[in-house]
Amino acid sequence: MLELVLRKQEVLEENWVVKVIPKLVDEILKNYEKYDSLNYLEGKDLPSTDIVIDVLEHLLTILFPGYYGKRQIIISDIRSFLNNTLNLITDKFVGEIDKSLKYICRKIETCPEDVCIRRSQLVVKEFLEQLPTIRAYLKGDIQAAFDGDPAARSTEEVILSYPCVLAIATYRIAHELYIRGIPIIPRIMSEYAHSKTGIDIHPGAKIGKNFFIDHGTGVVIGETAEIGDDVKLYQGVTLGALSFTKDEKGRISKGGKRHPAIGNNVIIYSGATILGGETFIGDAAVVGGNVWITTSIPSNTQVTIIPPKLRYKNINDHKRNADQNKRYDTP
Amino acid sequence: MLELVLRKQEVLEENWVVKVIPKLVDEILKNYEKYDSLNYLEGKDLPSTDIVIDVLEHLLTILFPGYYGKRQIIISDIRSFLNNTLNLITDKFVGEIDKSLKYICRKIETCPEDVCIRRSQLVVKEFLEQLPTIRAYLKGDIQAAFDGDPAARSTEEVILSYPCVLAIATYRIAHELYIRGIPIIPRIMSEYAHSKTGIDIHPGAKIGKNFFIDHGTGVVIGETAEIGDDVKLYQGVTLGALSFTKDEKGRISKGGKRHPAIGNNVIIYSGATILGGETFIGDAAVVGGNVWITTSIPSNTQVTIIPPKLRYKNINDHKRNADQNKRYDTP
Amino acid sequence: MLELVLRKQEVLEENWVVKVIPKLVDEILKNYEKYDSLNYLEGKDLPSTDIVIDVLEHLLTILFPGYYGKRQIIISDIRSFLNNTLNLITDKFVGEIDKSLKYICRKIETCPEDVCIRRSQLVVKEFLEQLPTIRAYLKGDIQAAFDGDPAARSTEEVILSYPCVLAIATYRIAHELYIRGIPIIPRIMSEYAHSKTGIDIHPGAKIGKNFFIDHGTGVVIGETAEIGDDVKLYQGVTLGALSFTKDEKGRISKGGKRHPAIGNNVIIYSGATILGGETFIGDAAVVGGNVWITTSIPSNTQVTIIPPKLRYKNINDHKRNADQNKRYDTP
Repeated sequence: MLELVLRKQEVLEENWVVKVIPKLVDEILKNYEKYDSLNYLEGKDLPSTDIVIDVLEHLLTILFPGYYGKRQIIISDIRSFLNNTLNLITDKFVGEIDKSLKYICRKIETCPEDVCIRRSQLVVKEFLEQLPTIRAYLKGDIQAAFDGDPAARSTEEVILSYPCVLAIATYRIAHELYIRGIPIIPRIMSEYAHSKTGIDIHPGAKIGKNFFIDHGTGVVIGETAEIGDDVKLYQGVTLGALSFTKDEKGRISKGGKRHPAIGNNVIIYSGATILGGETFIGDAAVVGGNVWITTSIPSNTQVTIIPPKLRYKNINDHKRNADQNKRYDTP
Repeated sequence: MLELVLRKQEVLEENWVVKVIPKLVDEILKNYEKYDSLNYLEGKDLPSTDIVIDVLEHLLTILFPGYYGKRQIIISDIRSFLNNTLNLITDKFVGEIDKSLKYICRKIETCPEDVCIRRSQLVVKEFLEQLPTIRAYLKGDIQAAFDGDPAARSTEEVILSYPCVLAIATYRIAHELYIRGIPIIPRIMSEYAHSKTGIDIHPGAKIGKNFFIDHGTGVVIGETAEIGDDVKLYQGVTLGALSFTKDEKGRISKGGKRHPAIGNNVIIYSGATILGGETFIGDAAVVGGNVWITTSIPSNTQVTIIPPKLRYKNINDHKRNADQNKRYDTP
Repeated sequence: MLELVLRKQEVLEENWVVKVIPKLVDEILKNYEKYDSLNYLEGKDLPSTDIVIDVLEHLLTILFPGYYGKRQIIISDIRSFLNNTLNLITDKFVGEIDKSLKYICRKIETCPEDVCIRRSQLVVKEFLEQLPTIRAYLKGDIQAAFDGDPAARSTEEVILSYPCVLAIATYRIAHELYIRGIPIIPRIMSEYAHSKTGIDIHPGAKIGKNFFIDHGTGVVIGETAEIGDDVKLYQGVTLGALSFTKDEKGRISKGGKRHPAIGNNVIIYSGATILGGETFIGDAAVVGGNVWITTSIPSNTQVTIIPPKLRYKNINDHKRNADQNKRYDTP
């Protein structure tokens, strides 16, 4: 690298910035016209990721009061806390959902002017009324985590330090929006949880009661996956698509059932990959680690790989021995 | 989705918010009573994730002064920087640890009133006195990263841009709390590092000197794992449990040695899975990528999978060729 | 844990903090001298991660105006937005790059005093002039994501919720700095994206047009990897090194071509590992999930593992049945 630093000794003029930037601005503006799908100027019909995530965090505060958000919620204030937070959520959410719907509506010309805002209000109302049900599901999910992990010492520890809690709570919120036809916003939410936890659950998936994902990094659950009750997954599990149908131009068709269905009371160990819209894993099945499945598994069946034979080799080479000489100045 | 937007044309009343929210507040309050394990009202006996992470970040600033936290630390100010930071940490830490202990103590009735705060002070004192030792370990870890990765150009680059630095430093801090019986707080810390790095090290694991994890995403190191000196792991390595013992009601038993032990000077390549509390990987062993091991490996042994046979197929289908037609307007 | 809390009843003096901390400060100061590679006091020659990430985020705002950063960019303000942002970037970037170069230059004594700042200005000028080209590449990358994923409903959804967008945009920025010999800063940027997305692309890799990574968690692309046009990767794909050459002291040699080359129009499915600097994957090849490759694959070839045989076992044990009794109070 030193050569690079020392090599090019071209010197810029004192006032290079003043000369270079205006020219660059012109070029970038031309570029904005040429590749206009990467701009969103004016931006009035696009939901804001910041506001969507803010709403999500307020929803988590309502779902887990005292755990998420401001720690101290005093019982005597709980009613006003709920009132304020729900009003704030309603206000922001109606606005963002309206924008996300208008973004679709632009594509049809005959859309009556106020259909988006009315639909948005209706969705927010319906969604908020689902909060008690979502909470009932989460209660089961957290109990499943506590029951399913020997390292879990308390449900408090689960809520405060298990990544599946954020991933599943966000999924259960986003799914309620997804099934009501809201575009983009559910995916902004799921990607937020993915970024924080490494768990990628598409809001379109259908997931039953008492769902637990241990560790979770690398888990992928596709849009049309279906998961029954009392299912436990470990890190690196993929419920994915097997192949895509393409149209005559070689373009992948959108939509269609592409991901597997998982029965009740199934355990899927780390690194297992289950693919295909026709694949069904029967009730009480156990799928071993690293298994790669593209066909269905009957109920009450344990499926494991016959592990690839291992090759053992005695190593006694000088390089490794050299490594063993303690070179480090350690405690 | 358009159909959904246009279909339901129910119109809410002007003042729907005023009508809906109070009813919802009542329902959520009932729900809080029903599923009270998801609430933490008053919250006085639960550590705050925000404060715990704040303390962690101050500790990292002390361990890597000038790298973490405010960049500029001037040598003439270093003594007052340390004094202030240590006082701040002590204050917050004693409070949070006290809360985490009270949370346990509630379960016994005879606990004398001030046992938690006294124990908390003692733990913080002992913990802070470990900081020089932790730093000595980290010095070895960083040197191991520099020595172990051909892409590393300097130890500065390692400290500033290798995820294992945050993961291992956080582990070494959290472990000191774990072995002193502090609940929840070590797991909040380890999950913070997991979220940032994709590396999930349980604070209960025992890890020796000069530890390096390259890339790291998807690494899982379980609560009772033991790792010797001079060990190197790659991304996606799991040191996990093989199976759980269950009680007569089918509930998983808590505790017990469940995770493997790794000797000194071992290399474990990406995606390898090593399971079970009886599994021991001997000194100077090399575990190949994707290997799945549930039994012990002797010292000085390289173990690799005999790779599954590959199936080659000539593909020349029209869809893929169609894909090759440049459809994109690219540079 | 209770025993631990109750056991040690040593009581600290009232004023323990005042006694313990000054002693600790002395010890830590001695420790700073002993392990001085973990300090960066004064810090004037080390780039600041905070500023580097701030610059990166401003660059993303220019590349995706209206998507990243402040949502609302009004067309009438676009020129002043660009002017201001470019001036701000230039100012900060010249400073940080200067520091990163000085950090190298300290190692040679004959370095003329102003070579770093002059080189820094030149690199920033050249870099900024690449922005339109980078945008043209990103346009292709986003179209490839939309075309390649059946779940993608719009390019807006891709930009707002696909982790590959941040990972690839950051890579394309960092690569322009890397090839101009700038140390540390490109790696700070790539690790920022890795932390957010689980996708670890070394800035040294060479990546062609229309690049798409689906899901992405666990992807590792090494420093000397080369990737052609129209390539699609899934989660957990590694393009890694096979082995390292070591010097006579057993130390890994830095540099050298260590990672594979991928042709045009290649698809690599989830969990595949491709290793080695001599490994070449030919045009239009398809690499199946979990494949482990250390040798080259010809063009137009599909390579899959012959899946390890599965072992099926009927399970009907009482413990699992016990689990199936609904223990949870769920909706």
